[in-house]
Amino acid sequence: MANKGRVFLIPTIIADDTQHKVITQQCRDILPSIRHFLAEDVRTARRFLSSLKIYDSIEALDFKILNKGSKEADLPELLAPVHDGHDLGVVSESGCPGVADPGAIAVNYCHKHGILVTPLVGPSSLLLALMASGLNGQKFAFHGYLPIDSKDLSRTIRSLEEESRKSGQTQMFIETPYRNNQVFKALINSLGRDTELCVATDITGKEESIRMRYVRDWRLQSVEIPKKPTVYLFLAK
Amino acid sequence: MANKGRVFLIPTIIADDTQHKVITQQCRDILPSIRHFLAEDVRTARRFLSSLKIYDSIEALDFKILNKGSKEADLPELLAPVHDGHDLGVVSESGCPGVADPGAIAVNYCHKHGILVTPLVGPSSLLLALMASGLNGQKFAFHGYLPIDSKDLSRTIRSLEEESRKSGQTQMFIETPYRNNQVFKALINSLGRDTELCVATDITGKEESIRMRYVRDWRLQSVEIPKKPTVYLFLAK
Repeated sequence: MANKGRVFLIPTIIADDTQHKVITQQCRDILPSIRHFLAEDVRTARRFLSSLKIYDSIEALDFKILNKGSKEADLPELLAPVHDGHDLGVVSESGCPGVADPGAIAVNYCHKHGILVTPLVGPSSLLLALMASGLNGQKFAFHGYLPIDSKDLSRTIRSLEEESRKSGQTQMFIETPYRNNQVFKALINSLGRDTELCVATDITGKEESIRMRYVRDWRLQSVEIPKKPTVYLFLAK
Repeated sequence: MANKGRVFLIPTIIADDTQHKVITQQCRDILPSIRHFLAEDVRTARRFLSSLKIYDSIEALDFKILNKGSKEADLPELLAPVHDGHDLGVVSESGCPGVADPGAIAVNYCHKHGILVTPLVGPSSLLLALMASGLNGQKFAFHGYLPIDSKDLSRTIRSLEEESRKSGQTQMFIETPYRNNQVFKALINSLGRDTELCVATDITGKEESIRMRYVRDWRLQSVEIPKKPTVYLFLAK
């Protein structure tokens, strides 16, 4: 059997123009030897790789699309370069592949086909938000997106709060930026006054704002969250 | 009121001699202006900062201990430099402060006293293990350490598996390295045969090994996990 290539999980920036701050030397050292990539969006991936100024030309790089529409049946073709002996990079649209993004199915395929997977260090808004929240980092859960319907949303928030009260688990979720203010209102209306709530917006970016308050204190303020990627975290006592 | 200093959350290496690979330029740029640190262990923190070769002398740096024995009542003294206008760095024993370590109480104090907290990008064995597991990265929970008593351990594993089956949540936990093989045996004996189990050892280190298999396949192998930091992840279908 021919030697297989390896798969590298390559983190990308989570805020514009931060590649010089947050992309590690490990990434810069490994990337030049990779010519094949899976990306959610080819344009973003090209722009990111180009911004690192480590390739003579990015025109020679091969990109295939791995997004939430990708199916298991697509994977043999997507991973074909690896079977042919080439290393391959999985690039997320933002942050770390495989976490809150569609990269996991490719990684799962790798494990089932004896392909070595190497995760590289880089920015993750979830992890950075958790670090900076001051909430319980010994026990936490990420729930992805909560329901959009306002009744379902309130019910879900209350149920996660009840679980947090019982277990001491920090609850984390994300929302699309244009819904930030709606979700924030649902949170301060649905959570108990003594619950600690952290709102972490535009982490590593120019408008980075990470604030944690008791819900009772949030209620006293006028809050406007910008339309930037935001992580919500809460812990009930 | 005098201007307060800021608090920076400074990730450290998670495997020996990897600082050139995984410590970002952001850390290297910010660190030289910080003279006051909170650390779990002063010797490790000094060694780490010294290894970056960015200080003329680390003798002039001020370290105070923040560990799992630290109480809320200790925080005003620990954060005193910030009230005096100095920036302060919180350094973990390994990886990211505030995640699976005692840093969170200091960050919580900051939010309650109007002190700005900035998390820096760096290695986290939990996040890297999740990325490379191929398990569900849209929904996951970290449970810290599981019980030591073997009956309690089996019961907890089964209950987490049941929860995972219902919710599709990846379950994550850690264990002290000398118990790796005991915990692994408990996992393959307690989990169902179709559950996917990932064992991620020494991430970023020389012995990095990240393997994900069905429990039924793990049972067919002879597995010896080295006494290195290991993250366990599983997902029931």
